[in-house]
Amino acid sequence: MSLVVVGSVAYDGVETPHGKVDRMLGGAATYISLAAAYFTPVKLVGVVGDDFAQEDSDLLASRNIDLAGLERIAGGKTFFWAGAYSDDMNDRTTLRTDLNVFADFNPRLPEAYRAEPYLLLGNIQPALQRGVLAQMSQIKLAGGDTMNYWIRDYRDELLQTIAKWDFLLINDSEAQMLSGWRNLRRAAEVIQGMGPRTLVIKRGEYGAVLFHGDDHFIAPGYLLEQVFDPTGAGDSFAGGFIGYLAGEGVAANDADCATLRRAVIYGSVMGSFCCEKFGVDRFRSLTREDVDTRFREFQSCTKF
Amino acid sequence: MSLVVVGSVAYDGVETPHGKVDRMLGGAATYISLAAAYFTPVKLVGVVGDDFAQEDSDLLASRNIDLAGLERIAGGKTFFWAGAYSDDMNDRTTLRTDLNVFADFNPRLPEAYRAEPYLLLGNIQPALQRGVLAQMSQIKLAGGDTMNYWIRDYRDELLQTIAKWDFLLINDSEAQMLSGWRNLRRAAEVIQGMGPRTLVIKRGEYGAVLFHGDDHFIAPGYLLEQVFDPTGAGDSFAGGFIGYLAGEGVAANDADCATLRRAVIYGSVMGSFCCEKFGVDRFRSLTREDVDTRFREFQSCTKF
Repeated sequence: MSLVVVGSVAYDGVETPHGKVDRMLGGAATYISLAAAYFTPVKLVGVVGDDFAQEDSDLLASRNIDLAGLERIAGGKTFFWAGAYSDDMNDRTTLRTDLNVFADFNPRLPEAYRAEPYLLLGNIQPALQRGVLAQMSQIKLAGGDTMNYWIRDYRDELLQTIAKWDFLLINDSEAQMLSGWRNLRRAAEVIQGMGPRTLVIKRGEYGAVLFHGDDHFIAPGYLLEQVFDPTGAGDSFAGGFIGYLAGEGVAANDADCATLRRAVIYGSVMGSFCCEKFGVDRFRSLTREDVDTRFREFQSCTKF
Repeated sequence: MSLVVVGSVAYDGVETPHGKVDRMLGGAATYISLAAAYFTPVKLVGVVGDDFAQEDSDLLASRNIDLAGLERIAGGKTFFWAGAYSDDMNDRTTLRTDLNVFADFNPRLPEAYRAEPYLLLGNIQPALQRGVLAQMSQIKLAGGDTMNYWIRDYRDELLQTIAKWDFLLINDSEAQMLSGWRNLRRAAEVIQGMGPRTLVIKRGEYGAVLFHGDDHFIAPGYLLEQVFDPTGAGDSFAGGFIGYLAGEGVAANDADCATLRRAVIYGSVMGSFCCEKFGVDRFRSLTREDVDTRFREFQSCTKF
């Protein structure tokens, strides 16, 4: 019973007010997988060049993450992204995007992946996301992420894709772009009408809102003492959310509100840890016990 | 056992994407008093001109709000403010500020106000705020609001003033300006060190955070179906917060976290209702039962 995660595996260069790293492991599928692996076995689908370091494969492999679906292109270079954050960390400027081998990414699932019940589609071309879902035979719960670029320029394709998803995870500005409404309740109504019964709207440091059928759940953001590097926080959120649901064996037709609400909090917990160090570094030392401790902290500082 | 509320009583002109009103009842003390009056008797201190309409006094008087401290200046005009909101309601531009009689506001408390136990100081000159507190003889719980202008240009005076407060209510950008920290936990530590043991940082639609001693409580914002006019929402929050505490008979030295947390939620509830109609209009029909219903809704949509 594994979770299949599809998306970018990359190297990132990041500058924040706290420092600068020229090249470190990154990519949506990396963060999603590392976060989800605290809850469930993961099978990753992605593509890298032959510059992808052994220590980075080793890190992923050491965490219950199956790399049979991580294609390596001989002579190719791994996707590279570089960005810089503003002083308040709320804006970031992309300094460089070298798609490299990711430009021709066409995810093919290894045979051993196809009967898995859980699927999280990271932000890639909607048609590719649709192709992945079509390769899977026994899905219990599937969904994913998207971004402004696909919403604006590939709208029809995106709508066809998410029509088949059980859940969609997007941020608030994307929800507005997709629905035409800034008001989250109105936006959610429109987006749920597009297919996904479950919608999670991420609001960065302000938390997230879950809509599931007629229910909604408002989760505030965990208050960190310091945000060191927000890169990957949204993907770590996604990983915690779907990882928890997969670990609990939840299927789309029996997903209850209480379990989905806990999944949102586990998502927030994983996103909050991600911000505490550069890149994936916090996950190197993070334990499942740390995760559960923060979940309980979340309860105690939101209860009334 | 009343709450004394000090601050502006005004007429406002407001433009939002939903419409325009040229002149309507407004002012911080008005919103604070109307919201607090759902929980406790209120004694208002303010100043108006002889253009202040009978129907507006009548509205306040009908709500358990004592107007003995509302000075009327013969031949004077009431404070007038006009502003326009951006499409997303998150920014507003001040179009006009005529201080009129408010320019010489020097709050004198009627004898009958001075032994009251609760005090909420709306945003006025810090020295005036200090003078009001000095007129009161049996305070159980006192605090108030301030704004960027006093923080920047009257810092020393403001620090002397809040040093004597049990609680301070400010928004996130003001907390940053006052403390030098954008991070709320760090900002709170610095501000609590200035005097107020209890600090509420308001975050607009994203909710509020309460710091009390070592405890903190993160409250998300209530999700309205439509924000009609946010004018007065922060003051209505303050009114709900202090009104609830006064109604419960809480004193500074026995304020417990659980009660303060509920006060923050009642604050959010009153702020959310305020946004549903222009100006104070929502309070014309709002009942205490509506308030308690929304408090329970808040519980049900934040529980996990």
